[in-house]
Amino acid sequence: MKVEYPLILINFKAYAESSGKRAIELAKVAEEVSRNTGVTIAVAPQLTDLALVASQVEIPVFSQHVDSYDPGSRTGHVTLEAVKDAGATGTMVNHSERRVRADEIDVIVKKAKKLNLLTVVCSNTPEVTAAMAALGPNMVAIEPPELIGTGIPVSKAKPEVVLDSVNLVKKVNPEVKVLCGAGITTGEDVEAALKLGTVGVLLASGVVKAKDWKAAIESLVKPIVRKA
Amino acid sequence: MKVEYPLILINFKAYAESSGKRAIELAKVAEEVSRNTGVTIAVAPQLTDLALVASQVEIPVFSQHVDSYDPGSRTGHVTLEAVKDAGATGTMVNHSERRVRADEIDVIVKKAKKLNLLTVVCSNTPEVTAAMAALGPNMVAIEPPELIGTGIPVSKAKPEVVLDSVNLVKKVNPEVKVLCGAGITTGEDVEAALKLGTVGVLLASGVVKAKDWKAAIESLVKPIVRKA
Amino acid sequence: MKVEYPLILINFKAYAESSGKRAIELAKVAEEVSRNTGVTIAVAPQLTDLALVASQVEIPVFSQHVDSYDPGSRTGHVTLEAVKDAGATGTMVNHSERRVRADEIDVIVKKAKKLNLLTVVCSNTPEVTAAMAALGPNMVAIEPPELIGTGIPVSKAKPEVVLDSVNLVKKVNPEVKVLCGAGITTGEDVEAALKLGTVGVLLASGVVKAKDWKAAIESLVKPIVRKA
Amino acid sequence: MKVEYPLILINFKAYAESSGKRAIELAKVAEEVSRNTGVTIAVAPQLTDLALVASQVEIPVFSQHVDSYDPGSRTGHVTLEAVKDAGATGTMVNHSERRVRADEIDVIVKKAKKLNLLTVVCSNTPEVTAAMAALGPNMVAIEPPELIGTGIPVSKAKPEVVLDSVNLVKKVNPEVKVLCGAGITTGEDVEAALKLGTVGVLLASGVVKAKDWKAAIESLVKPIVRKA
Repeated sequence: MKVEYPLILINFKAYAESSGKRAIELAKVAEEVSRNTGVTIAVAPQLTDLALVASQVEIPVFSQHVDSYDPGSRTGHVTLEAVKDAGATGTMVNHSERRVRADEIDVIVKKAKKLNLLTVVCSNTPEVTAAMAALGPNMVAIEPPELIGTGIPVSKAKPEVVLDSVNLVKKVNPEVKVLCGAGITTGEDVEAALKLGTVGVLLASGVVKAKDWKAAIESLVKPIVRKA
Repeated sequence: MKVEYPLILINFKAYAESSGKRAIELAKVAEEVSRNTGVTIAVAPQLTDLALVASQVEIPVFSQHVDSYDPGSRTGHVTLEAVKDAGATGTMVNHSERRVRADEIDVIVKKAKKLNLLTVVCSNTPEVTAAMAALGPNMVAIEPPELIGTGIPVSKAKPEVVLDSVNLVKKVNPEVKVLCGAGITTGEDVEAALKLGTVGVLLASGVVKAKDWKAAIESLVKPIVRKA
Repeated sequence: MKVEYPLILINFKAYAESSGKRAIELAKVAEEVSRNTGVTIAVAPQLTDLALVASQVEIPVFSQHVDSYDPGSRTGHVTLEAVKDAGATGTMVNHSERRVRADEIDVIVKKAKKLNLLTVVCSNTPEVTAAMAALGPNMVAIEPPELIGTGIPVSKAKPEVVLDSVNLVKKVNPEVKVLCGAGITTGEDVEAALKLGTVGVLLASGVVKAKDWKAAIESLVKPIVRKA
Repeated sequence: MKVEYPLILINFKAYAESSGKRAIELAKVAEEVSRNTGVTIAVAPQLTDLALVASQVEIPVFSQHVDSYDPGSRTGHVTLEAVKDAGATGTMVNHSERRVRADEIDVIVKKAKKLNLLTVVCSNTPEVTAAMAALGPNMVAIEPPELIGTGIPVSKAKPEVVLDSVNLVKKVNPEVKVLCGAGITTGEDVEAALKLGTVGVLLASGVVKAKDWKAAIESLVKPIVRKA
């Protein structure tokens, strides 16, 4: 599945609202808006729903987490090969709710390239963003944890965190793209994120907890559509 | 999905042989043998395949692992609610390859009961088996880690470990059933396990790595069918 | 160092008030009160202070935590052998602020016996207390985490948690002694804890954060002295 | 305690040979060689011995590990403040035997600067070395885990790993110094490490397991003395 930028990546987290059958419904809504607008919208359902969701939609599907292990005697762990077999396009890793050690991310990023899977590594400060960029993933997603789930966009509350991150990544590894996360809810937030030099947004509650999923996603893509 | 005893629980681990589409195939073979013989055969596919496999077969499906968290901001974690939404009958937890703390297992076992999900808690020594039984799960699965994947059945190599476990569980919490794991490959191993007072077996490579899945599973259920 | 019951075990946690030189001062105050009253008072200083504190006092010193590893290539870990070499009498393990897996506690308890070190395994619910008792440590310390540091003694707020724990331990392994933790501050709390069938208390802020350490500890031992 | 370069940092690990009283003896031998030669030799004893060793010698003492927490209710954890109170000069962190997450290292490095404690962050590959350098510690110590404890020096077996690390660090954060670890045993190894652009070595078994500690340390400093 091709990923083009700007990218809207919707993290379903472990929310009840986006679990099981509702995961498929939400993914289909995202697919519909993507088809109607041409904007790349990707979804990251819960681990248990990954293969099922990926079998039902034709938009990029990401795993919320992956372990560094090779296939084998690793009960309860998620390998990159399993993510690939599940039909996913890539994987998030190191979300603030599920951190992973740097040496493991190093293994994951290198192996994901061989498997042709995209990697989105989350970070919390400009320094950690630079560190993650040094590992060479496709994207880093900067999310100050104190803003996650607040509805207060980092692009407004702490634009300097995003700007510093973008600048450090340019210096450390200019091939790595930056996503902006934490507090994203509206198209205005997306626009602000893009202006700060990022290639898109990572968000969760702004969509999942919205009463009208379609309206919420349409609002997010509006500034991108307008520009195009 | 009803679970009757004796129970054969097949853990797909993170094996390449039982990942993605092959997970569905293997689950369907297990379903076929179960239907033909009347023996309960359950499968525990990889986390990423859970909902997809559960949607394709009518035998009990178990998660390989679960976290103690409630639904919410828990990216990359597996909640019991997600396991339920995925269509699973229950969950394994505390496999030697993915240990979980006792206080977390306590939360998991209590919540699983409310959600009507079965719990299989793995252990390694008679003492740990007794400890896990004290938490009140439906089943404990005793698996000396040094025998896992060896093809040397614990029921032969260390029958006293199984016997001591069965006896301690009877004392600590007689409602808890005991499964026998590690090194199980043949019907003979299943028979030995049942004779030691367990209600079935937990196995992985003995089936997953077999050249002929159907023959391997049929061999396992044979002593149970004969008895019935 | 001999441990007699009732036992007052003072956990220094990572409090600034009981770190470095102040750890030695506090341990010496505990030693003085113990000598004056004949009541066993033990201290658990921070890991980094363990050998230094043990070299300065003649009361039982406990480690706050221990790992299950044997001596060797285990940088940054705490072995039982190191705890022994540091001059400690025993070790706490599985505090709510530093949980350890049951299979590791199993290894720790068995090895501590060989090394003649005492083990105090913390727990949070009656079920987990029973589970820890099944592993056979010298003591379990029941501490409902929601009461830790509150000054509200568990013996008053949730006496049934302590009673249920004591009863379950009797059933599972009557040789294991029970300490009562969480919210202990006064001699009255100690008395209540002993009445519930425990052999003593585990406390931290009630002493460490007190303005007058000596007065705080003397208050705790008073009901024990009166009885004797 | 002043740290000058080149630096020899001796990690005592959890070896029985360098535990308790033997930790003091080894630290005193290191102190003697340092005094006789003018070369900075630092020691990293086990956590439990930290304050005791620091009270006995006048050479830089490092903690083997530190947690990111502030002082408080953190039983069994090691705070930077405790390391400072113990009289240490700095701390190692993220050793291959005790990894720590990047976001935690970020917190540790920033706080250590405020407390005037030196940080040595371990890494395993050039990419992880660059990532750790992005967090701004005083030193990174590159140690390919497969060579640790082998006696095969990384400077010989994989000089390109050290060179690539040195070059990436220069680019990412030129203020960060690089130590060379894994397999270091002789003065020749130290010399090779310095030639590759590092400022010293981190080693363990090469000294701790040596029959003659003094001879082993003297051999290490010889090429540095010759140069000076």
